Amino acid sequence: MPNAQQALATVRATTHPDKLSIIMFSGTADKFIPLGVFAQAAAAMGTEVSIFVTGFALRGFTKKIEQPPFPVEFADMAPALAKGMQEAHVASWSTMLRQAKELGAEVYACSMMSSVMGLKKEDFNDLVDDVVGAATFLHRAENGQTLFI
Amino acid sequence: MPNAQQALATVRATTHPDKLSIIMFSGTADKFIPLGVFAQAAAAMGTEVSIFVTGFALRGFTKKIEQPPFPVEFADMAPALAKGMQEAHVASWSTMLRQAKELGAEVYACSMMSSVMGLKKEDFNDLVDDVVGAATFLHRAENGQTLFI
Amino acid sequence: MPNAQQALATVRATTHPDKLSIIMFSGTADKFIPLGVFAQAAAAMGTEVSIFVTGFALRGFTKKIEQPPFPVEFADMAPALAKGMQEAHVASWSTMLRQAKELGAEVYACSMMSSVMGLKKEDFNDLVDDVVGAATFLHRAENGQTLFI
Repeated sequence: MPNAQQALATVRATTHPDKLSIIMFSGTADKFIPLGVFAQAAAAMGTEVSIFVTGFALRGFTKKIEQPPFPVEFADMAPALAKGMQEAHVASWSTMLRQAKELGAEVYACSMMSSVMGLKKEDFNDLVDDVVGAATFLHRAENGQTLFI
Repeated sequence: MPNAQQALATVRATTHPDKLSIIMFSGTADKFIPLGVFAQAAAAMGTEVSIFVTGFALRGFTKKIEQPPFPVEFADMAPALAKGMQEAHVASWSTMLRQAKELGAEVYACSMMSSVMGLKKEDFNDLVDDVVGAATFLHRAENGQTLFI
Repeated sequence: MPNAQQALATVRATTHPDKLSIIMFSGTADKFIPLGVFAQAAAAMGTEVSIFVTGFALRGFTKKIEQPPFPVEFADMAPALAKGMQEAHVASWSTMLRQAKELGAEVYACSMMSSVMGLKKEDFNDLVDDVVGAATFLHRAENGQTLFI
């Protein structure tokens, strides 16, 4: 039987949500910025970061780069935003994600949607660590927080 | 006073987030796929799943079926995606959600937005278990993880 | 060494997720409704509510009010929705957010995106408590649930 101190340590280890999982589904250009920012910030804080890329967002992780579309409602803001990012010296989302990965973040592509979109493991670039199913990802995300972007 | 073992069990029972809640707000066709996939996968893992349908997504749960619109930014991908879903033998989102419900998932329609959109309980199809308020849903979602889709 | 009772209290205090954090990124008009509803409902339940406003949503929090655009896929529903909101006596999102703030909710603007969009602290209206970075927000959101809207 554990003593109180051990119980506390065990509980903290099993329930402490120093874990941030991100389901990256939306494929418009704007949504890749918060992916990079939160993955990088959380990883830098020592949080365990796991990312599950699915839906239209998968196209942002292929070797053959396809520029993701800008959301139509804010199309008029695209040039000012690009200029602002440059002037504020904001790193690109993929640079931020690479920094997160150097700090331990893992990126998975959704096996089901990869199959639906005709994408194989070799079609993804080096940002993707593996192609897995939703259940595998949900297991990893347990006891943490999950953002759906 | 509980001993350490009991304290551990109590804490696990109250804080263990084997609970996945989903706020289904977005009403475009693509977003119904992750709703079905994550609800089904989580329920199959033994996770308690609760879904709160609100906003434009409510129209996907009425007896009078209205085909949800495809996001305009990806309109050109709609035919390939439909073909890919069929070829990969992916079940429809409502079939996946029905499987989740057979495993215990519950689906609630938002009372406020139902009222705003002129929808009564009898307007919803059999996927909807009840019409409740946001506070009731938040109570159910406590101590778990919640995705906003 | 704490006894079991103290361990339980400590664990509850540190892991009990009576904390709802919201990352408000999307800037279309519809998404401000769930922001108001969930912030208000959670705060009324005694939940600690923190909101991090970023991306296009920042424009909804400036002194110079800019009407956020309606999502193009549902443009035809805008008039009926506005009428339904009025007839159901639904408060505006900013009124709901003000109620949440009276109950303790805090609203932060993202420093990086403010800089990118050329917005200074004095450009934001009274809904915004402070301008902070993503890491600061993630620290506050620890051990709770976070919605990405």
